[in-house]
Amino acid sequence: MRKYVLAFLLGYVTIQPSLAQSPETLRIRQYHQQHADTIIGEFVQLLSLPNIASNPIGLQKNADFIMAMMAKRDIHNIQLLPTKTSGAAPAVYGEVKVPGAKQTLIFYAHYDGQPVNPSQWAKGIEPFTPTLLSAALDKDGTKIPFPTDGIFNPEWRIYGRGASDDKAGVAAILNAYDAIVKSGLTPTCNLKFFFEGEEEAGSTHLNDILEANTTLLSSDLWLICDGPVHQTGKKQISFGVRGDAHLDLTIYASKRPLHSGHYGNWAPNPAMMLAKLLASMKNDAGRVTIKGFYDDVVPFTAAEKKALAAVPSVDAQMKRELGISSSEMTGLSLSEAINQPSLNINGMQSGNVGKLASNQIPTFATAVLDLRLVLGNDWQRQQQKVIDHIKAQGYFVIDHEPTDAERATHAKIIKIIAGNDGYNAQRTSMDLPIAKHVIAAVQATTSDQIVLQPSMGGSLPLFLFEKYLNAKTISVPIANHDNNQHAENENIRLKNLFEGIETMASLMMMK
Amino acid sequence: MRKYVLAFLLGYVTIQPSLAQSPETLRIRQYHQQHADTIIGEFVQLLSLPNIASNPIGLQKNADFIMAMMAKRDIHNIQLLPTKTSGAAPAVYGEVKVPGAKQTLIFYAHYDGQPVNPSQWAKGIEPFTPTLLSAALDKDGTKIPFPTDGIFNPEWRIYGRGASDDKAGVAAILNAYDAIVKSGLTPTCNLKFFFEGEEEAGSTHLNDILEANTTLLSSDLWLICDGPVHQTGKKQISFGVRGDAHLDLTIYASKRPLHSGHYGNWAPNPAMMLAKLLASMKNDAGRVTIKGFYDDVVPFTAAEKKALAAVPSVDAQMKRELGISSSEMTGLSLSEAINQPSLNINGMQSGNVGKLASNQIPTFATAVLDLRLVLGNDWQRQQQKVIDHIKAQGYFVIDHEPTDAERATHAKIIKIIAGNDGYNAQRTSMDLPIAKHVIAAVQATTSDQIVLQPSMGGSLPLFLFEKYLNAKTISVPIANHDNNQHAENENIRLKNLFEGIETMASLMMMK
Repeated sequence: MRKYVLAFLLGYVTIQPSLAQSPETLRIRQYHQQHADTIIGEFVQLLSLPNIASNPIGLQKNADFIMAMMAKRDIHNIQLLPTKTSGAAPAVYGEVKVPGAKQTLIFYAHYDGQPVNPSQWAKGIEPFTPTLLSAALDKDGTKIPFPTDGIFNPEWRIYGRGASDDKAGVAAILNAYDAIVKSGLTPTCNLKFFFEGEEEAGSTHLNDILEANTTLLSSDLWLICDGPVHQTGKKQISFGVRGDAHLDLTIYASKRPLHSGHYGNWAPNPAMMLAKLLASMKNDAGRVTIKGFYDDVVPFTAAEKKALAAVPSVDAQMKRELGISSSEMTGLSLSEAINQPSLNINGMQSGNVGKLASNQIPTFATAVLDLRLVLGNDWQRQQQKVIDHIKAQGYFVIDHEPTDAERATHAKIIKIIAGNDGYNAQRTSMDLPIAKHVIAAVQATTSDQIVLQPSMGGSLPLFLFEKYLNAKTISVPIANHDNNQHAENENIRLKNLFEGIETMASLMMMK
Repeated sequence: MRKYVLAFLLGYVTIQPSLAQSPETLRIRQYHQQHADTIIGEFVQLLSLPNIASNPIGLQKNADFIMAMMAKRDIHNIQLLPTKTSGAAPAVYGEVKVPGAKQTLIFYAHYDGQPVNPSQWAKGIEPFTPTLLSAALDKDGTKIPFPTDGIFNPEWRIYGRGASDDKAGVAAILNAYDAIVKSGLTPTCNLKFFFEGEEEAGSTHLNDILEANTTLLSSDLWLICDGPVHQTGKKQISFGVRGDAHLDLTIYASKRPLHSGHYGNWAPNPAMMLAKLLASMKNDAGRVTIKGFYDDVVPFTAAEKKALAAVPSVDAQMKRELGISSSEMTGLSLSEAINQPSLNINGMQSGNVGKLASNQIPTFATAVLDLRLVLGNDWQRQQQKVIDHIKAQGYFVIDHEPTDAERATHAKIIKIIAGNDGYNAQRTSMDLPIAKHVIAAVQATTSDQIVLQPSMGGSLPLFLFEKYLNAKTISVPIANHDNNQHAENENIRLKNLFEGIETMASLMMMK
């Protein structure tokens, strides 16, 4: 409190970042502390609804529940935005018109979650039975009952699929609006709410939904509430995402598995061929050696460079946490490295290993490559650079199982499937007036310096918003960084949920 | 017949190889043609008995059946040679003393077979229901009933586990002795029979059995009847085997799987590390680049070199058959290549591929290496050369999961498990008098020039016979080369079984 008073006395009036918490934030905080029981109760109900792509009825129940959450909050024009394809999960829409507002913000989150394998979850924790723990599992957290006195320790965590990715986003956004209204405050912008139901399944129909609703979804800015805050625990804003593209490689050797004694040294080994091919793509300093791989990259602006330089280093912390002692691209920090195009092996396989290994020469070897792209890269051109490199290593490139004629003619045969689900990077300028308002609004909720990321390392198809709606996007994530997103034992730290409500509320009231 | 008469007129009296069939062979042929029904009937009974390691009762039934086969043939001193470990399959032993014989031969085959996965076998063919086909499956063979007139087309095949590997060996040996006696011929050597029951399980207790029976098993030569004839279809004799050793490699990176977007370029990728490590072990000409890898090799003798030069080339045939257009060690023929030490990747794996692939950086990458050794190589020294090479690439080598302290100190960590089941190559000199007798005996059964292999590419623990019995070994295989040994749809071509009887009989009567 003292800090805020000081900041106020010093002239807390501009939209420049300040290390003080706004009076509005304090009002919102008071609200969620007094109503924690209701907020958590509703959140637990939402987490109890299975939300995986293979369960469309479950997804529909989630959408219905969110519509009811909106109706309870007196949000208007509530509706499902279905896709053209029957059966795909609809988006849930609602809006609030604010008298005198000059801008419109759309808040995005998604209510679907990644598939679950309950057997991989910790004992006593079921993906769709939200469970309260005293701390993180790997910090000796134990199961505790939900409190009856309405007092929640902010270090407690709720475990369950979607707890942080991304039902926390839905809850933070809707409770933020609730908190504003019930605290006697007023949003400064018109608000729209868009909750997707197909994000974890690749947003396959998002383009349909956007294209069919261009007027309904018009806005000055999309605010994407998805993902974790900075590894330091500080709040962060991401102004962009890397693009993504894939390549599936399969090298063919003998048609049948061969006895490694009778044919070893003579019959080509596809695992060794793949190893040599992959090894040719990167040098020992972690740089991709494929011709032109780092071309096309649009340099950072002065503001972006300044922001990047100010990102707190978590390299030492993350190395400790992950049990590694060096990084791949030598000489680059984590935030520098993830702002470069990358080539990563997601998986590779040939023959069998461990107890299944036998004295054989395998018939084929396969690898999946994941290419991350930065602004300026075209995802198909980036795929083509890799394909050209493979050709330059002497490979005959095909898109099918090799025929006998092809086998007879070419010593090195590779099938390449260039994934058609790629997309480019997206970056919103940090210099835009609205970007500065977003920065100020988030900074107004915390006395820690917030982290500004010109781009996150991960990818989201944010280009769709630009393509179909000509819209800008900025990501404001709220989850703890150790939330086990996409994996077993997903969880949200309560402090992150509550602070997320404060962040979303501040954005709705941004100057 | 005409060929034999001509050879006889020209002076068929020496033990030098001759391209004529001996009169004894013709007598044996007449016998097996007249008794094909009995021979095949008994063979089918033997093949009906499950003979896999996981079924000890089945193995015992096989041993009992073979003892009964011996008793029927008036073979003496029949007994089981058990292992010290109760439960391990015994060897079956029997012998025939021949008045005036100056030498003793032991005939070796094994009655156990590789594990089976019935679902991988062709429709209508069960591993332990011997089935007659009109030809090989991939040559449009169809199921036919066993004939009632005793006439078997030599191109027919019997399908079933053990049909060629190696119950064909047991049947050929015991029917050869039967044919000699019933044709009024006489063996020239004392004969011993040794049928192992644990070969496909790694001959784990063979040393026990040999050590406990050194007198019983004394001989001038072990004749190993196991494996296929030459790919040209010609009979062959192998005077040696390559040795074998294994290495299991696991490279460690981050403790938990990482999002390839958020950490790609920064977190080390173990699949890429493994690819670079494996790639460093071989050059583009298929030569192993590990220091000293080709040292220690004992050169071939003049006789071995001559034999090697005379091995018919099957390179073009095998390339067609396998669908490959080039070989790994450039400039070397198949028989040259398999007489060099080799380094082969049996399998490698990291992360997931295909539909299971996800946008991750895997936590580890693993590979299994198979080292084949030639005369002069020591299997542990050969393993050590690979380990030293890996160290020279900057790896910290451990034999356990890395500790946090090790992870914090070393950038490149690899767990290496050097398999302790390795053994050295074994070679019997082709210049030994007894070797020349073996060559002459096999050559006396065929008008085709037989193939003499100084060593086969594969490995057998023949060093055990030398170590425990100070004995020489020569391999005389009989199965067709396309017998699907170790795999589904194992089969024997009847011609190979019948000609195998002729080969074994000729050896028993060798001059």
